[in-house]
Parts: sequence; C-alpha cells; structure tokens
Amino acid sequence: MNMNSMQTPESENTPQFGKYDLIAELAQCFPNDNASTVVGIGDDASVMDTDGNHTVVSTKVFVEDIHFDLTYVPLKHLGYKVVTVAVSDILGMNAIPTQLTVNVAVSNRFDLKAVNELLSGIEACCETAHVDVVGLDLSTSRKDLIITVTAIGECEPARLVTRKGASDNELICVSGDFAAAYAGLLLLEREKKVFEVNPSTQPDFSGKDYLLRRQLKPEPRLDIVEALRREDILPTAMCVIPDGIAAAVMQICRASGKGCAVFEEKLPMTELAFTTLKDLDIVHTVAALNGGDDYELMFVIKQADFEKIKNVENVSIIGYIKEQEAGYKLITGDNVQVDIQAQGFKRA
Amino acid sequence: MNMNSMQTPESENTPQFGKYDLIAELAQCFPNDNASTVVGIGDDASVMDTDGNHTVVSTKVFVEDIHFDLTYVPLKHLGYKVVTVAVSDILGMNAIPTQLTVNVAVSNRFDLKAVNELLSGIEACCETAHVDVVGLDLSTSRKDLIITVTAIGECEPARLVTRKGASDNELICVSGDFAAAYAGLLLLEREKKVFEVNPSTQPDFSGKDYLLRRQLKPEPRLDIVEALRREDILPTAMCVIPDGIAAAVMQICRASGKGCAVFEEKLPMTELAFTTLKDLDIVHTVAALNGGDDYELMFVIKQADFEKIKNVENVSIIGYIKEQEAGYKLITGDNVQVDIQAQGFKRA
Repeated sequence: MNMNSMQTPESENTPQFGKYDLIAELAQCFPNDNASTVVGIGDDASVMDTDGNHTVVSTKVFVEDIHFDLTYVPLKHLGYKVVTVAVSDILGMNAIPTQLTVNVAVSNRFDLKAVNELLSGIEACCETAHVDVVGLDLSTSRKDLIITVTAIGECEPARLVTRKGASDNELICVSGDFAAAYAGLLLLEREKKVFEVNPSTQPDFSGKDYLLRRQLKPEPRLDIVEALRREDILPTAMCVIPDGIAAAVMQICRASGKGCAVFEEKLPMTELAFTTLKDLDIVHTVAALNGGDDYELMFVIKQADFEKIKNVENVSIIGYIKEQEAGYKLITGDNVQVDIQAQGFKRA
Repeated sequence: MNMNSMQTPESENTPQFGKYDLIAELAQCFPNDNASTVVGIGDDASVMDTDGNHTVVSTKVFVEDIHFDLTYVPLKHLGYKVVTVAVSDILGMNAIPTQLTVNVAVSNRFDLKAVNELLSGIEACCETAHVDVVGLDLSTSRKDLIITVTAIGECEPARLVTRKGASDNELICVSGDFAAAYAGLLLLEREKKVFEVNPSTQPDFSGKDYLLRRQLKPEPRLDIVEALRREDILPTAMCVIPDGIAAAVMQICRASGKGCAVFEEKLPMTELAFTTLKDLDIVHTVAALNGGDDYELMFVIKQADFEKIKNVENVSIIGYIKEQEAGYKLITGDNVQVDIQAQGFKRA
C-alpha cells in the first residue's frame, strides 16, 4: 500500500505480499477491545463508530528515495500524489474523505519555497477531493524529506464496504485504466539514466503526457464512490489498487475466502500505454496486473447490479468471483487459464 | 510538540516557537470548508464532528536521531513513549483516546525481533490507556527507524477543551511534576559521552530510576481527564506539555488573548530532580519552564472549581490568568516579576 515509484513490479511485490503476511502475524499482539472499534488492522483503513456513524482513518508515510524520487518528481506533484494515496484508502472503504492532517519532516536541504510548493500540491488535491486540511506539523529530518498524511473520512455504517464479503458469481469491477502509471514510471526512470550519463540531454516525453500524469499526479476516485451512491449500488467487497490488479483481487479473494476468474481481454488499458510498453519490451498484461501507482478502485457487485453499473462511467467488469477452490485465475485471450500471482505472495 | 529527547531546552525551543509561527503562516493556504471540521490546524489535535459527537485525531512522526537516540533508548520504551506522546494530544483536548494506528519504516539494520520489541512497547502503553491498535503498516527506510503514530479519540462536544477560552483570574493547573524527564535526559546524555570515551564503563544511574523513567517511559495522563469528568470540572482552556511549562502557558495565553502570572514556588518538582539538576549545575526553574518530555497536562479552571480540584490527586495550581497587557510573568521566590520566555518565541 505504499507509493513505490522507485521499484519495478518484481522488486516491489516480492516483499509486498510477504509484508502483508508479516503485518497479519504482528497484528495478533494487538487485541481490539473498545466498543467503538469497527475495522482494525488488515483493510485499506481503520474504522471507528461514533454514535452510529463511522469515522474512517488511514495514515501513509512517504520517505524520500524509498517512496519517491525528487530527481524527477516535482514537489507540487508529490504533494498532490500523497493526498491521492491517503484519500484513496478512505475511498477504498466506500467512504467519503473529509479531513486530512499533514506532517512534514525536512532537512536544511529544503527551503521555505520548497515546503510551500509541496503544500500547494497538497492543497490542490484536497480541493479536488473536497477535503479540509485540519492538521499541519513540521519537524526536522537528518537528510531526507519525510511526508506523513492522515486521511479521515465518514460513512453511514450501511454503506461501509471492506475487502471481505464477495460471493460466488459476483462481478469484479475496476475504475479507470491500468499500466499507464507504470509505463510513466519506466519512462521517467529511463530518462533519469540518460541524464545521469549525459546531463546536457533534455528528456523526450513528447506524446506521453497521459502516462506521466498517471504516474506523477494520480487522481482520487471520489467520482466513483459518489456514482455508486447515486446509482444505489452497494459493493459486496472493495479496495483501492495501489500495487496492480493482481494484489487487489487477491486481497479481496483472501479476505472473502473466495477465488476468481479475471479476463485478460477485459483489463482496461489505453492504446498509449499498450504501445509504450511494447516499445519498452514489457508485457502489457503483466504491467496491468503487477504494475502500481494506479490508485483506481476495485469493487465487487451483485449480478443484479449489472444494468446499474453501466450508468457509471469509467468502470470495467474484468471478471467474477468463484469458489475458493478455483484459485485466482487469469483467462488469457486464447482462453488459457493462468494462475494470478502477486509476485512474492509467499513469505520471501 | 515533538519528542525532542536529543536536544537541550535551548537548542530545542529556539526553532520550536518559530516553528509554530511558521505553521500558522503556512496554514493560511488551507481553508476549512467541510461542515464536519470543528478544530483545524493550531491546537493539540484536530477535531471532526460525526453526527453530534466529536472525533479527535493527532498524528506524530518520530525520526531516529532527531526525536530519539537508540544508543540509550530501549525499543520497548520507545514504543511506549511514542504512544504516550500521540495519546497525550488527545488528552490535551479533554478527550478520551480510543484507537491508534502505527506505521513503522525500518531499514535492514532492524530484524523482526527489534520490530517486535517496539510493538510490544506500543501494546503495553495502549493497554494502559485502554486504546485499540486498529492500523499497522510496515515500510522501508534507507537507514533510520521512522515511527508514525496516529491517535484517535472521542469527546462529547460539550466536554471538548481547546487552548482558547481562558479568562482573567482563572487558575492555571498542571498535573504531575516537572524537570525530572529533562534531568533524566541529561544523565543519559552524560553517560553516553562517558561511554563514547571509554566503552568499558558501566553507566551509573543508582537512585535515579524515577528520572530515567520520566524520560524513557512517560505515562499518558488519562487519569487526569477521567478525574476532571468525575469531579464535573470543565476546564476553560487546556493543552499537553511536551516542551516545558513556559511554552504551554504561552500557547494557552496566546490562543486566549490573555496574560498570566506563574509562581516559581508552585512549580511542582521532586526532591530528586531538584538535587540532580543542582549537581548538574542547571537552574531547576529553567528546567521546569523550558525542559521537555513531561507530557503532563495544563488546564485552566474557574475559581468556582477551586474546591473541586483539591479532590484530584497530582494536580498543582501554579498561577492564574491575567489580562493580555500583563504579559507572561514568573513571580520568583523573592517576589520579583520575570518575563516567561519560551526561548525563540520570536522567529529565529
């Protein structure tokens, strides 16, 4: 669930799923006793009950050179993106984000102008998502920039959707398109290497704007959560997609005790992402399944909602839920069944 | 509001108050529009309204060698302390802490045993404070340990107390005693220096247990917030005391548009802290005013509550609120008025 811009899907997902297993193991030492605790460790966000309404909270930490690379990430875009990442965890519970707190730790490498750039990006995304910044703290770091964002949201209890709850034959939906953010990352990393060898070169990103925007300035999908309310669709399971479709669908299936079939040909992708990945010798399906940084939403709906979901723009049905024994399968274009793997699903 | 174990009051408070001015300045670019936002940037914690009840949230970030020094801070104590620090922000609003989320970023310097030690300290303090750990995330850092804790609490709206609201002649109260945590820090720093010169030496802390405990394992003062409810005392202003009495009383006075008189002889301090500081050639009053890491509570009560507050153990009345023009005064033992200064009150 981190913003792992720096890493390829391979290096990324290997510790990633092992990490979730480790968190689940460590979580056992934290019993939840308070009556107001609704959802604890192990979903997109934590949920508290306040007199019948639900408060949803998620905190994200972004460390320079681990989660972002200031060589090619402008501070304003970075500010925008950290808000998208944190707010998306709230959206992933079918909740409405409302407030945000920000902690910034900077070293003397950063001046006030830099901090202002970062905050202006944070403010821009908060405006997009109709979120109030209600907390701001500054502190010192030895060298790296460290940004912490806590997103807070609200949800009627009946509208809250966790990863758990998908049933057989229900439809797996995703918003937006995939692999574009990953293609954007590859382009940025390629140009960084060129620049390191020859600092006088200018990066060539002509015609690739969409891919760069998807990587540098992803949007929180508030529109999807609002559309689900408008169409009166209550998903049975839901999560955000920070690390590719494979990890997301497996998280929902694991939490729900189910399997799935996902159709390769249904994975939404732009022509630009497809051709760019082809030029880069990357299999586009792998990028959609295991690339990251999309921050789109995945949700499972009942078959009865099939007609209604057509009214929601920018949503694709990519497969359906099966019994647990069916495993996690990708049905390829030539109708071959392949195991879906978030690399490193087993403990590394 | 950071856990600045590494710094002396002098080096600490200089940027500290400038920091608050800077935050106030930066905060201007964040308008609060959502109806559910009750308290935004500039108090101990942020407050949201959820259908008539208040949710209180505060996030704290702790960076190795900035906020803590693993040379002498055991990981279990560190876990305990980060919870105290975060939870104290909730208590500082007169709210009851209920949940907590934890993010830990570790490098390969730390093994699973180390992470478990840290989490066991977090769990121990959460048990003390009756708080559920509802979120846990692990990520990577390049070298340093970075711990982020978000504390969540609840409060009936009528019981919420901010820094603003103190009136003339009301009584300034503090819980616990002061300067002990600072004395503990000085002892630890002294022994660290001795150890660096001669690694075969054993630290000599005999008889100083209380000072070390105050520095390494401060307690969240849930008992005080509960006692205020039990005695039906509603403070008019309140805050936590992370950076000494001076900064706290000035924060309340500034927010309330008031001045104050604080009596040197009323500053609560143990005999042990007094004698230890004397041995270290530190003026004990300065340590109480400008030392840090106490995480006690400061609150202002009406004179009418004077009899009731006597029923609350561990509370001292240290002064009273005056009109703004009176400034912030310390009345010394020999009845001399001295300006209270959080060093670096003016922008550095």
